[in-house]
This record gives sequence, C-alpha cells and structure tokens, in this order.
Amino acid sequence: MRAEQLEALLAEVAAGRLAPGAAVERLRHLPYEDLDFARIDHHRALRQGQPEVVFCEGKTVEQIVAICERLAAATGAFLGTRASEAVAVALRARFPDLKWNPIARTVYLAAPDAPPSAGGPVLIVSAGTSDLPVAEEAAVVAEAFGTRVERLVDVGVAGLHRLLSAGDALRQARVVIVVAGMEGALPSVVGGLVAVPVIAVPTSVGYGAAFGGLAALLGMLNSCAAGVTVVNIDNGFGAAAAASRICRS
Amino acid sequence: MRAEQLEALLAEVAAGRLAPGAAVERLRHLPYEDLDFARIDHHRALRQGQPEVVFCEGKTVEQIVAICERLAAATGAFLGTRASEAVAVALRARFPDLKWNPIARTVYLAAPDAPPSAGGPVLIVSAGTSDLPVAEEAAVVAEAFGTRVERLVDVGVAGLHRLLSAGDALRQARVVIVVAGMEGALPSVVGGLVAVPVIAVPTSVGYGAAFGGLAALLGMLNSCAAGVTVVNIDNGFGAAAAASRICRS
Amino acid sequence: MRAEQLEALLAEVAAGRLAPGAAVERLRHLPYEDLDFARIDHHRALRQGQPEVVFCEGKTVEQIVAICERLAAATGAFLGTRASEAVAVALRARFPDLKWNPIARTVYLAAPDAPPSAGGPVLIVSAGTSDLPVAEEAAVVAEAFGTRVERLVDVGVAGLHRLLSAGDALRQARVVIVVAGMEGALPSVVGGLVAVPVIAVPTSVGYGAAFGGLAALLGMLNSCAAGVTVVNIDNGFGAAAAASRICRS
Amino acid sequence: MRAEQLEALLAEVAAGRLAPGAAVERLRHLPYEDLDFARIDHHRALRQGQPEVVFCEGKTVEQIVAICERLAAATGAFLGTRASEAVAVALRARFPDLKWNPIARTVYLAAPDAPPSAGGPVLIVSAGTSDLPVAEEAAVVAEAFGTRVERLVDVGVAGLHRLLSAGDALRQARVVIVVAGMEGALPSVVGGLVAVPVIAVPTSVGYGAAFGGLAALLGMLNSCAAGVTVVNIDNGFGAAAAASRICRS
Amino acid sequence: MRAEQLEALLAEVAAGRLAPGAAVERLRHLPYEDLDFARIDHHRALRQGQPEVVFCEGKTVEQIVAICERLAAATGAFLGTRASEAVAVALRARFPDLKWNPIARTVYLAAPDAPPSAGGPVLIVSAGTSDLPVAEEAAVVAEAFGTRVERLVDVGVAGLHRLLSAGDALRQARVVIVVAGMEGALPSVVGGLVAVPVIAVPTSVGYGAAFGGLAALLGMLNSCAAGVTVVNIDNGFGAAAAASRICRS
Amino acid sequence: MRAEQLEALLAEVAAGRLAPGAAVERLRHLPYEDLDFARIDHHRALRQGQPEVVFCEGKTVEQIVAICERLAAATGAFLGTRASEAVAVALRARFPDLKWNPIARTVYLAAPDAPPSAGGPVLIVSAGTSDLPVAEEAAVVAEAFGTRVERLVDVGVAGLHRLLSAGDALRQARVVIVVAGMEGALPSVVGGLVAVPVIAVPTSVGYGAAFGGLAALLGMLNSCAAGVTVVNIDNGFGAAAAASRICRS
Amino acid sequence: MRAEQLEALLAEVAAGRLAPGAAVERLRHLPYEDLDFARIDHHRALRQGQPEVVFCEGKTVEQIVAICERLAAATGAFLGTRASEAVAVALRARFPDLKWNPIARTVYLAAPDAPPSAGGPVLIVSAGTSDLPVAEEAAVVAEAFGTRVERLVDVGVAGLHRLLSAGDALRQARVVIVVAGMEGALPSVVGGLVAVPVIAVPTSVGYGAAFGGLAALLGMLNSCAAGVTVVNIDNGFGAAAAASRICRS
Amino acid sequence: MRAEQLEALLAEVAAGRLAPGAAVERLRHLPYEDLDFARIDHHRALRQGQPEVVFCEGKTVEQIVAICERLAAATGAFLGTRASEAVAVALRARFPDLKWNPIARTVYLAAPDAPPSAGGPVLIVSAGTSDLPVAEEAAVVAEAFGTRVERLVDVGVAGLHRLLSAGDALRQARVVIVVAGMEGALPSVVGGLVAVPVIAVPTSVGYGAAFGGLAALLGMLNSCAAGVTVVNIDNGFGAAAAASRICRS
Repeated sequence: MRAEQLEALLAEVAAGRLAPGAAVERLRHLPYEDLDFARIDHHRALRQGQPEVVFCEGKTVEQIVAICERLAAATGAFLGTRASEAVAVALRARFPDLKWNPIARTVYLAAPDAPPSAGGPVLIVSAGTSDLPVAEEAAVVAEAFGTRVERLVDVGVAGLHRLLSAGDALRQARVVIVVAGMEGALPSVVGGLVAVPVIAVPTSVGYGAAFGGLAALLGMLNSCAAGVTVVNIDNGFGAAAAASRICRS
Repeated sequence: MRAEQLEALLAEVAAGRLAPGAAVERLRHLPYEDLDFARIDHHRALRQGQPEVVFCEGKTVEQIVAICERLAAATGAFLGTRASEAVAVALRARFPDLKWNPIARTVYLAAPDAPPSAGGPVLIVSAGTSDLPVAEEAAVVAEAFGTRVERLVDVGVAGLHRLLSAGDALRQARVVIVVAGMEGALPSVVGGLVAVPVIAVPTSVGYGAAFGGLAALLGMLNSCAAGVTVVNIDNGFGAAAAASRICRS
Repeated sequence: MRAEQLEALLAEVAAGRLAPGAAVERLRHLPYEDLDFARIDHHRALRQGQPEVVFCEGKTVEQIVAICERLAAATGAFLGTRASEAVAVALRARFPDLKWNPIARTVYLAAPDAPPSAGGPVLIVSAGTSDLPVAEEAAVVAEAFGTRVERLVDVGVAGLHRLLSAGDALRQARVVIVVAGMEGALPSVVGGLVAVPVIAVPTSVGYGAAFGGLAALLGMLNSCAAGVTVVNIDNGFGAAAAASRICRS
Repeated sequence: MRAEQLEALLAEVAAGRLAPGAAVERLRHLPYEDLDFARIDHHRALRQGQPEVVFCEGKTVEQIVAICERLAAATGAFLGTRASEAVAVALRARFPDLKWNPIARTVYLAAPDAPPSAGGPVLIVSAGTSDLPVAEEAAVVAEAFGTRVERLVDVGVAGLHRLLSAGDALRQARVVIVVAGMEGALPSVVGGLVAVPVIAVPTSVGYGAAFGGLAALLGMLNSCAAGVTVVNIDNGFGAAAAASRICRS
Repeated sequence: MRAEQLEALLAEVAAGRLAPGAAVERLRHLPYEDLDFARIDHHRALRQGQPEVVFCEGKTVEQIVAICERLAAATGAFLGTRASEAVAVALRARFPDLKWNPIARTVYLAAPDAPPSAGGPVLIVSAGTSDLPVAEEAAVVAEAFGTRVERLVDVGVAGLHRLLSAGDALRQARVVIVVAGMEGALPSVVGGLVAVPVIAVPTSVGYGAAFGGLAALLGMLNSCAAGVTVVNIDNGFGAAAAASRICRS
Repeated sequence: MRAEQLEALLAEVAAGRLAPGAAVERLRHLPYEDLDFARIDHHRALRQGQPEVVFCEGKTVEQIVAICERLAAATGAFLGTRASEAVAVALRARFPDLKWNPIARTVYLAAPDAPPSAGGPVLIVSAGTSDLPVAEEAAVVAEAFGTRVERLVDVGVAGLHRLLSAGDALRQARVVIVVAGMEGALPSVVGGLVAVPVIAVPTSVGYGAAFGGLAALLGMLNSCAAGVTVVNIDNGFGAAAAASRICRS
Repeated sequence: MRAEQLEALLAEVAAGRLAPGAAVERLRHLPYEDLDFARIDHHRALRQGQPEVVFCEGKTVEQIVAICERLAAATGAFLGTRASEAVAVALRARFPDLKWNPIARTVYLAAPDAPPSAGGPVLIVSAGTSDLPVAEEAAVVAEAFGTRVERLVDVGVAGLHRLLSAGDALRQARVVIVVAGMEGALPSVVGGLVAVPVIAVPTSVGYGAAFGGLAALLGMLNSCAAGVTVVNIDNGFGAAAAASRICRS
Repeated sequence: MRAEQLEALLAEVAAGRLAPGAAVERLRHLPYEDLDFARIDHHRALRQGQPEVVFCEGKTVEQIVAICERLAAATGAFLGTRASEAVAVALRARFPDLKWNPIARTVYLAAPDAPPSAGGPVLIVSAGTSDLPVAEEAAVVAEAFGTRVERLVDVGVAGLHRLLSAGDALRQARVVIVVAGMEGALPSVVGGLVAVPVIAVPTSVGYGAAFGGLAALLGMLNSCAAGVTVVNIDNGFGAAAAASRICRS
C-alpha cells in the first residue's frame, strides 16, 4: 500500500464513507501493507526493467513455467538463473521472445517497455575460460537490472600482461566484478589497480585442494587489497545484484 | 613518472639533449614508472584526507612508530588499526594530536588540512554489544576515509522491532555495513529492507560451533537477500574501505 | 516381562512348583524382559496411532516391503521416509490404502483404528520452495504421530512482511518447526517472535559455501534466540519426532 | 499499538480531530508498534520471575554491573552467565542477595516476589565430572526460569549400569537435558530409554579429535534415537531456555 | 641374505676365492637382501591359508582378473574386496569355486588345503541394517584369514536391550569388531561391557551432518571406553586384518 | 547381585520367608544388580594390579586428591594421567610412595601386592623426541596394567636405518604401539615389518598444516598397512589400554 | 615492444619525425609491450619443444579442438591433459600423429622438429596401481617438456624392500616425483633416501577419511624429510612442470 | 661405514687377521652401516658448510644445548630453528661465535672451515612485513646450506609495481622462494614472471578466515602458474632445504 493509498483510505474515513471498524479490518495488515510498499517498489522496479529472478535449480519445469507465467502476467518480464535446456525449451514454447543464454544458464523475458541499460558500466573480469558461465550469469543479470556491462576475459594472474593491457577498461568501470576459481588471486591484483568497488566471485573451477571453490573463497576473503568484498561460490547473480545496488546508490 | 615528466624526457630527446640510447635506459622502468602513477594517485588521495593505514597486529611498537613517522612526514596523517594500548601511548608521546579509540583499537592522526567528512552516509549496524569493536573500527576508518557515518547498535534479529523501528536511518543510508557474530543473520534481514549496497562483516563473537566466526561468515555468504557482499571475519577495516570505494564511485 | 508376570513366576517358586535354580535361569534375562516392557509400550503406542518408522534410503525395495509387511501384520500400520517412487509402487501393490506423498517422500499406512490427530498444533514454517520436501516430511510424520499440523511456507527472512503477517499462526502453535536452508536465519527470527519451543531443521538447500547444509546448521546452532534447538540437516523426521514428544509431554 | 488503540486513532480521524495526513505519520510506524507488543510481553514475563539474561563473556566488569543495575531497577532481578569471579565480587558488593555459583559461572538476583519453581521437572543428566559446569549452568538457568530441576551425574555410556539404575528419575522427568563431551553418545542412549523430549548439549570436554566439542556435536546431531534435539557446544543456557519453553508450552 | 649366506661369502674372501673389492659389490645391497626375508615370511603366510587381498575399486575387470590369476597360480587362493558384480562374474567364469558375497562385495577363492578357521572367535557387532555390507566384509576377511566369526546385528544404542540380551556372545569373544554409522556410539557401550579388544569401524551410513562417516569416526576416536581402537570409515577389511593379528599374536 | 545372591533370595521366597511381592521390589533393580557384577569384576581387576585411572586435566587439585584417596582406600592403588606438577606435589605429600613421571605427566601409586609386569611385551615406538610425552604415558599405563614394556625412540621414517636396525625388538613384541606426529607415516612402515597388532597414536607434534595432530591422525587412518588401528590424538593412555586388552585376551 | 623497437621509436622522435606528444601516446602501453616480451619468450620456448598445455576438463570437445588447432598452427604442437576418449577421437581425426595415452588421459602432438628428451632424468615413483593415472600424466608432461623420465611403480611403504631394492634408480635421478594416495607417506621415506629435489603429488586414491586426497596432502605437507615440496591433489601436470623447471634451471 | 672401511675390514679377513665369524658380528649391521654411509655423507656435507638442523620448539633449553654440543663436537657446526631468546642466550654462553638472528629465530654456529656460499642465488620474495620471520628463516638456512641468497621484501600483489620493478632480481635467480600469508597470491604472480623453480611458503599471517595460514596454503596449492610447489605453513626451513637440493642437483 502506497502512502497515497493510505491517505485515500483515511480520507474515506474522514468523509464518513468508511466506518472506523471497517478501516481497522483493511488496516489490520498495514504493517505488512507498509512492508508491501517494498513490494510496490519492487513492482515499480520491474516496470523499470528489473525482472523478478527465479532460481531454477531444484524446481521442476512445471513449477518454473508456472512461476514465470505469474511473473510475466504481473510485470511482463522475468529472469531465471541456473536454467537447464529443458527449462529453456519449455519457456520458449510459451514465451517466443525469451532469451536463453546457455553459457550463463539464464532465461530472460525483457519487459516490452524496458529502458535500455544506462548505469555503470560494470566491468566483469574473469580469470579463465572455465569461469565464463559464472561471469556470463553476472553479465546477464546486471544487464537485466539495467546496468551496462563490459567484459574482460581470460586474464589470470599467471599472465599479468593480459590484465595490465586492459588498463582503460579497468579505469572506466564504476564497479568491477572479478570472477576466478583455483587460487582466486585475481581480485587482489585488480583491487590494487582500481579505486572503484571490487566484488569478488569465487568459482568452483579447480580440482583437488580447490575443494569446490573453498580455496578461491578463502583467498578472496583474505585479499590484501583493501575494499574487496566477496559473494558465495559461483554466485554470479549475487555479484550482479550487488553491483546493481552500487550503480543505483 | 607522471605524463608531463615523460613528455619532458621526450622533449629532451627531441632537442638532442638526450641520446635515444640513454633515454632507453631511463625508460626501461617505464612500466613501473607508469605504475608509480598509482603511487602518485595515492599521494593525492592522502592529501584528500585518506591516510595510509597500518595494520599494527604483529608489529613491534618500534616498527609501528617508525612507519607512522614516515607517513606523517610524507602526508601529515596516518591511521593504524588493531593498535594496543602500548602502541597508542608510544604514538601519543610523539604525536600529541593522535586520536586513540580504545574500543575500535585505532590510532589516527588526521591531516591538518583534512576536509570534513562529506560522502555517504555509511550506516553501520551491529547486532550485539560484543560486536562493537569491529563496528567501531569500521566507523573510524570510514570517517578517516572522508565518509559520514551513522550507527545503529544492538539490533539483533531475535528482537526485530529494534531494527524495524530504525527504518528512517536504514532508508537514508547510501551504504549499510552490517556487523554480526553468532549466526550472522542480520545482513539477510537488512538486505531485505533496503535497496542500497549492504556489506556484511562476520565477527568472531560467539562460542562453540561459532568456530571463531565461521558460522557467521557462512551465513552471510549464503544470504538469501540478493546483493549482500561479505568481507573477512572481524574485518571492519575492509568493510569501511569497500564502503568508501562505493561512496566515491 | 511385566511386573505381574514376575510376581506369577515368584508365586510358582513360593508354591514349590518351580525350583529356585530353574527360576534363576528364567530370571537371568530379566533385565531385558524388563526392557521388553519398552517394546510393549511401543506396541501400545502403535495402537494409539504412531506407526513404526522405516528409513528407506539404502534398503532394497524387497527389504522395505518385507519390513512393512511385518509391521502391518503386527500393528496394522507403518510409516516409511525417504521412499523412492519404486518403493511406493511396490508397497501400494501390496497395501491399496497406502498414502504416498511424493514431495515428502513418505509412504504411510494408517492403522484402521487410528484416532484423529489431536495434540499440537505443530506449526511447520519453511523458508523457501526448495525446503518443502523436508517440511512435508516433518508434516507427514507429525500427523502420523497423532499431532495436528499447520503450515507456513515461503517466509524467508529477506521478505520479513510475509512472516510478520502470520502472527496469529505463530501465536497459536504449541511447537514451531522451522525449516530453512542457505544461511538458516529464519529460526532466530521466529524464536524472537514466539514463546513456545522452536525446533530448527537446516536443509541442504543452497550451493557453494552452503556446503550441503553446513552453513544453515551452524547458523541455527548459534542462534541468538534463546531456546532454539536443532536437528540434523534435512531431518524433517527428527524434528517431527521431537515435536511429538513435546506435545505428548 | 493494540487493535483498540488503532480503532481509537481512526475514530479521531472520523471525528475530524485528526487530519488524514497526520494519521499517516502516526501509522507509519505501526508495524513496530505492533512489534512493541512483544516488548510488553517481555516485560510481563519479567514480572513473572524470569529475569533478563546477561552473557558476561567479552564484557567488562563495569559494563556488566551497569547492565545489571538497569535490569534490577526495572524488574528486581537479573541472571548472568559465564561470569568470572571478578564479576561476581563486583556484583555482590552492589547486590548483597546475589547468588554466585562458581561451578556454573552464574550470578543470579532473584526477584523478591519470584514464585517458587513449579513446572517440570527438568532432569539434567551429565556424562562426566568435567561436564558439570555446563550442566550446572543449565540447572541454574532452568530454576531461574521457574522450572524444577533434578540432576543425574557421572553416568557415561561406558558404565551403563549407572544410568540404568536411575530409571525412576528418567521416567519422572518432563524434559531431559543430556550434557556430554567426548563422543557425545549419552543422548542416544537416554533418548532410547525415555519418551519425553531430550535436549542434547555437547561440551568441549575432550582433547585431540574432540576438536573442541565438534565430535560430541556431530554425534548428537546424528543420534539414532528419534526426537533428540541439539544446542550449541557448552550451551547449558540454551538447553535450559528450550526446556523452559517446553515446560511452559 | 641370511646370516649363513653372509658367513659363506666371508669364507670365500678368507679363502682368497673372492677379492675384497668384489665382495664389497655383493654386499652393497645387503639391506635389501635382508628385507627380502620379509617377502619370504609373506609367502609362508600365504601357505598358512591367508590369501593376498586385492582392493578391486578403481581397477578394471581385466586388471583384477590378471592379478587374481597370478595369485591363484602362486598360492591357489585370493581374496578381493569392493568387487562389483561384473568382477564377480568375470572371476567366476575363470574360477568356478569362487565364492562371491554380494553384500560384503567380496570374491574369495579358498586355497584347496586351507585349514578350517580356528582362532577367535571374532564377534562382529553392527548397529543397523545399513551397516551390514561393512560388517560382512569384515566377516569374510576374518574367516579367510583363518579366524572363526560370530555376528550380532541390529543392536543400535537407541534400543539397548537388544545388545544387553547378547551378553553371552559378548563375553565369549576374543576380539569384538563394532560396526556403526550415524553417531558411532555403539563401540563405547560395547567397550564398557567387555574386557577384550574392541575395534571400531565407522561407516558412511547417515546423512547431513554425518558427513560421510566423519561423525561416527570422531565419535569412536573420542570413545570414553578405554581401549577402543579405530580404523578408517567403511574399512571392514582393516578391522578384520587387525582382529586377525590379535588372534594370531 | 551375584548369581548366588539371587539364588539365596529365591530360596528365601521358596522357604516362605520372603513374600513374592517383596521379592519383586528387591528384584526390580536386578538388571542393574546384574550389571553391578561388572563393577565387581572391576574390583577384582583392581586387586590384580590394574588401578583405576584418573584423567587429571580439567579437575582441581582438591578434586584429584579426593578421588585418589577414595581409590587408594578401596584398592591400595591409583593412576592419574595428564597430571601437573602441582597435582604431583599434593599427592606425594599424601602418598609418599607415589611415582611421578614428569615427562609422561603421570602419577602412580602401585598396589602393595601388585604382581610384577608379565604379559607382552608391548613395544612402544616413537618417531621423534617431541613425541616422548605421549609415548611415556603409554609406557607408564601399560606397566601399571601389568604389561612388560620395551621402547624404541627417535626412529622417524626420514632415517629408515634407525628403525630397520631394531628388527629384533620389532620381531619380539606381542603388540607394537607407534607414536608419531607430523605426517604420521611411521605406523605404515612398522605395520609392513611386523605381523603383530599395531596401534597407532597420532600426536599433536608439528605446526601449520599439522592442524594439531589432524594430519597424523588422517595419515594413520589411511595407512596402507593392513591391520593398523588408531586411537585419538595424543592418547597414549588409550593405546596402552588397548594393548593391555590384547595382551590379556 | 622489444628494446630495438623502443630505440627505433625514440630515434623517430630524435629525428623530428614523431612529435613527443604522439610518442607519449604510443608509449602509454609500454609496460604491457614490455610484458609482451614474456609472450615472445613463451613462443621461443614452444620452438624448443615445449607445447602449450590445455586443461581439457570442463571444456567442450569443440572448444578443445579449436584451441588445439590454433596451437598447432602457431607452433606445430600441443599437449592436452584430462582428455576424455571423445576428445582424443576428435583430435585424432584432425591430427593423425596425435599420441593419446588413455591411462594418463593426455593427448599430445609433438612438434615435427622437437629435439629428443635430454635433461633429467626425472624419476617418477608411485605407491600403488591406482596412482598410475597421475604418475603417467606427470611422465607424459615431463617428456613433452623435454625431460627424460624413469619410472618406479608400486613401491608403497608397507613393503619397504620394493623401494629399497631400487636404490640405483633413486641415486641416479636429478629430480624425484613421488605420487601416492591414502596416507601419503612415501615422499617422506624417499626424501630420507635421496639428496635431490623431491616433489610430492598426493592423489585422491583412498576412501573414507582419505577425504579425496586430503589425508595424503596433509601428510606430505608435514613430511619429516626436509626439502620435500608438494603440489595439488592429483596434479601430475604441476609436478612435471616443476621438475622441468628444475632440470632447466 | 665408508666403502674404504668396508674394504679394509674385508682385507683383514682376507689376511686372516679377522675370523669370518667375527666379521659377521661386525657386519651384522652392515645394512645400517650401508645406510650409515648416508650419515657419513652427511658428515661430509657438514664439512662443506651444511650443519645439522635442530628444531628447537618443544625442546627444553637443556636438551637443545646438549644436542648442539654433540653436533659441535662432531662437526664444528650446528643450526637451530624456532629458537627463543633463552635458547640463544644459553648457547651463546657456550659458543661465543654463535650467530643469533632474532627475526628468523635461528641460532647458527658455522663450521670454522665452512666455504663461502656459492650456488644459487636463491631469491627470497616476501609479501609483507609480517612475513619476514619466515622469509628470514629461509634465508639463514639457505645460506647455512651453502647457497647465496637475495631478498625482495614487501612486494604484495595489491601493489604490483613493487614486484614488477624488480624484474632483474627475478630473472637472475636460480630458485625463487615466495613467502606470503593472507590470500597467498604472490607465488602465482611470480610463477608467471619467471621460468625457474618457484617454492611457495604460506605463512600464518592474517586473521579470521585466514585460518592460521590455511587460506594461503590452499591458494598456493591451487596456483594457476604451472610448476609452483608448496611447503608447510611457516616452513621457511623446508623451503630453503628444497631450494638447496635444487641448487646442488
């Protein structure tokens, strides 16, 4: 319930058109209506091009289609992450305009009136080819959230010149998302080269003592570059959401 | 080497006053001269009120005093974290204007011409009284980095009304730093209430299966609130550095 | 051996119909006869509607059918958890009245004379859609144990208003079971809102640093809400068994 | 804000004595007014003899004394856990009626009009002498929360007869708290002997692969006795709080 | 090189039939000739009925058949553990007398002149039905190593009477192997009931915080029953080998 | 209650001197009386020279002295492990015949009529000088349990010749206890050289990735030498207790 | 940019053919041109017979073929590790001279003019048959990097004589790579026998508390043999790369 | 026993001055005499400047002095690591020429005729000031082992220009030891810049999720720079020993 809706309701009461008792009933959930403001904010945000996000892993195709249909009906848009090919096929049959990015494992239906991406840019830096699915997930989400995205791929720290030669891209970013597996050293190096916020995404790329991304995660949490923050392993979505918060703030 | 210095050198060559071979020698380290630009940026940053930061833990009092004297000579300012009382006493004997915050364990010498804090505000939310040292470290560092700071203390999730009643402070922040130990649930709740960037700081507060902050760290990394990013356990400094990057970006 | 049986035996000795030496032999296992009382208690409990519970995972379909047939013959009832579709199909062929809940992965044959659920209610609160299988397992088990069950789904802490709007359900519960994965923060919030016992069930929902439910488990063990107790990861059965003990106590 | 308060406010609006805009302002914080009810509940609980509990570890003596003075002023009572001798001495100087239990490490000031313990009994079973501090903490807290307490000490599973000979105590308890370190097997054995709720408290007693209580914690979480729930390592307070919730439910 | 061989060699030198320099060459490898004695011990052990043991997991069917053929040729016997059905089928085609135990996952070809099992008995106690594969592996190996085996199944600590009623079997064993998953409490209880050596085998049975047998392993290592020793998770073979060493010692 | 006591009681009933109902009362605790037999066995064991063992760590000097006085009164003997110098001094003041081994950290009062050590020998092999406290604890305990002890010190695997030159001692042992920290490789090598039972004791000797003995523990659990069993980190007592069980079996 | 290129550019400036400002632009990226030298070094290395190495795991067959075609075009050679049969088949269809080693899981196209292996020899010692894939990967990589390779297989520490009898091979190696799973003790023993560098490779061979190679990894890191260094679990490639660096240094 | 000693003994036998039986006695330990060759090699190595190394941690001052006196008597030299000031003072009283390095925590008595360091150089690179003790330990040990040492300090990856400006030192090293705590990223960067062997030493520098050096250790084991090998946390000694093996190989 927006403030104006509340004021209208109270005006009804003031005008004698709504009995106080009846208003109590309608206001019983005002706390949550108040909190519903956030939901309305959310709806508005959707109209501005930021779709609701569905984490598809662990849901059936039927569940995902049903959720997406409800979202599309309400907002004209939706975004799904960790979507299998089966999910993509089922959704495309229902939504011909769906964009499926098989590397990012995303399914995206843009709102018809979604404004072009504007804020940012968010620079997404990835250490190796195997980190691309996570980096691409971040890219798709950030763009769906209305942020311009630049990419810098395959710039692992064992070949520094590749990273250093991209100085311009680094300097022009508003936020840098750094995606890396194995030892996860790249955010420290990037964090030492730029002054803007750096969001580190450890990936599960690696084997043995990588322990499914734990090595990269610990490396990033202990970064000697001040001001690097970290999200969960393989959480490209979270990094993009954080970057989008920064660009909007 | 600044751009003008390079141009001057090249002018020397153009004027025949410097042989190309001799210039090669002087330019051999140009990459690092180029990277020295970053050092110059750093110097400039210091002039803007952001002091060099010394991590005092594991250094002797003598080492810390020596480092701070060099920093003060160069920039008129310094900031030390994890400073013991002995460190504070030794530094205050040398720098009467030193500000020692025993809760935050910080020692700070502000530059004489440091501008007042401007950006932000950064809202620092802490879950319990025992989390205050980390929260205060974040506050001191953020202020030393030129950012305005607001505080919201003792708002753990087991008593939600305390947090919810601070809605205005939450809504007016540009960045929220959330400091919590034990189960580390507070950033998830805060992340669901605000739209701005949320930086979560797990603390080592707790016992038993808190495992020195591991429980809070894992909780924050797995936050169901999209866009929460995390720093190392007890790393108030890092959270403030990240918040400051956001405020400047 | 029940007390009356023991007295009868001793009467035989007193009457000279049983030699002391022979009675020694029969009493040699008295401890276990005494403990057999517990088995008889257990039988009685079954007659009261609480079936024996079979953990199906890691048993063959043949083993499960054999065990259930023996249970059904003895008590007219059984309950199986972690049952695959193959198990359900095989049991239904044998027991047409079997209730199979594919989400909860339970197979249940109610005793013909099982009384309707009475105690409680146990309120089962779940954080997200992916936590439903564990929540449903708890619900089926609690009902099979004779307890009324209420459900509150999809009330994760990142959208507090959904939980807060269910204040009535929270206040009317005798026990609350809270099922959550990821950071496992929900039991802390619920524990702060209610005065009744709260049993927290971490789930393996999540990825990366969720470490198969470890993050949620640690979060719940470190809950800042006093009086929250915890069961094993994904152990909906155990939570229901504990809730049932409380409701009966 | 109670429902009648809300109706009164709306009546003011209906009567024209309160402008709709002004009412909006006063209703803005309604959620938190609603949550303030919980605070009032909390106050009432205090009047019923359950003191606020202060976790003393990590607070200075001065802080603890200040908090306890505020609590005593408000409610006439307080309870502190993990209290050092220095804390006890300082508090006793201020509150002559203070009860200090050096084994339990508790300081307790009973409300002058606190009713005698009534509910329960809670049976507190401990495996070894070294587990006594945790068991005693549970006992003091449970009694301060108004519950009768029974104790059964030194009944580790390597000497089963000691536990089995206490069958009466086991059968008469309403809740059993089982405190054990090392392998933490005792709750499984107790859980198989009683029908009432069993709350397991792992302790940090042990060495080497006990890993500070981790072995006992994992053992208890994996208990083969259905219905055992677990609290954090060494968390006697939490077990007592949970037992008290059960006794009151 | 046996002592008499060495004396013979030195006699050759004394007799002038072997130059000192040449003797140095032959003595250069004396350590390993000495260690070759161990190999001969091993051969003798095989003649005594203890077959070489092949760990089949991670080897191809072809590799296993080839190894077993070499063993059968040398000793007339072999024993394989962790054998799949494919391995068993392939070996049986080649060795019609092969005994395949699909629960224990063992393949065994007894030496034609193997003496009947004599030492022991080794009592193999298992906590639940799911622990049977490990318990059976221990049983097959112990018998193949010439030890008599007794079994006691499904005597988990949550139903103590089942274990206590088997007092005779417990008292008559020379060694007890206790196989248990989940919390692994059974060895502590057994260790408190018997005076003979107890070898604990944790199994990977369980889920969630069982962490693949880690909980049971830690529980057993921290057993409060003095004199319990532990082998690797699921290592029925190792427990049998140790029990056999004890029976022979 | 011994069998003869039970027969006497039944004779009382047969003779009419005890009413069946009264006998039921006295037999109510028969299970535990039966288990009390184990206590009597234990007493007898004490008379045979095996003292009760007190784990001193975490007990006060007063508690330890009180326990030891009770043990000495009952059996004439006691053995304490992990005893500090203060404990030793206090006990020696009370028991002039006390033997204090400061390296093993043991205090031992032998029964006046304790027979000389007979079984075994147990060979205690230690890898380095820093492992001596654990090895000596094992030696003192094994001797107190009536077993002869041999020692082989400082034979780490990086200098194999030291171990190999002790072939005679290895071959003559009935049980070998191997004490090692760091990588814990020694039991594997010893297990490959001897045919008797090998009990491995990991120690907390080491640093960094030794993780307080975890590396040695895991190494020993994964030993490629069949038949090595393992006790807890630094648990010299447990190894000796197990070795003593083997020597008596 | 090579030194001569830089001198040429400066000569242009000296000759007035290039304005200083324009030269600044071209020199802006000098650091990375300088670092491009490393790329040229790399090219030269390829000409010396060391192919670029492709980690095939986690790449599609199409990606791998495309990368290898580019490498073959540039250098006439490539080497792939962790290659599946599908990868090998696809590459062989394109490169008939491809050498596929299915045990090592490598695909290798030697440069037509690759010189024969010369340095070394690197001795690759493996503990068990299951460690062969890792040992073979090391062997193929070391040979592709131009180093002679010797092998010593199945010399686990539980049968020391097998290792000791290979003294000559051990003494003649320039570097020893030791590959072992389970407890990972072999490098310590080998490190005590040789004076040359020893590189330890833990493998994931084992089960239960081997924890996927963690036990072997920790064992090797804690080796009591001074001078053993360690690579990641199963990282035969890394060990060979390190050995090759040593042989070339 | 050196080869010439063996030949002399055999000549005694050949000359009839030593009976074969007597020679057998003296040769009984030939295997170990053969292995004693290694000891003699070791003695010779000591004369070449490589002293025996004593790990002082966990030894008493008296033990250390006794060991060092024996070493000094035999070889004129010794080297101790992890030496406290008390150890240094006690040794200096006995050996006036002792060199004590309080940062490296080493005590060193050079052999009077030790040749100057020759091989190498070993370049020791350290990331931060707090890593100096480990780096200095490596330096002292490498020099004591006869290797020239260069140092490069405070070149953490967050300020790459400091490392890059040291290109000459990097290029001239025969081996590079990289010492770093926190995220341990420096070896990856160094490994990408040099072609010589890189030995990574993780340090326990850091806090929180550094977990005592675990983060750095995992980072280094997962280095994306091929050919980096790793030693234990804080093991400067081991890195120097490995580097010395490489320089001698």
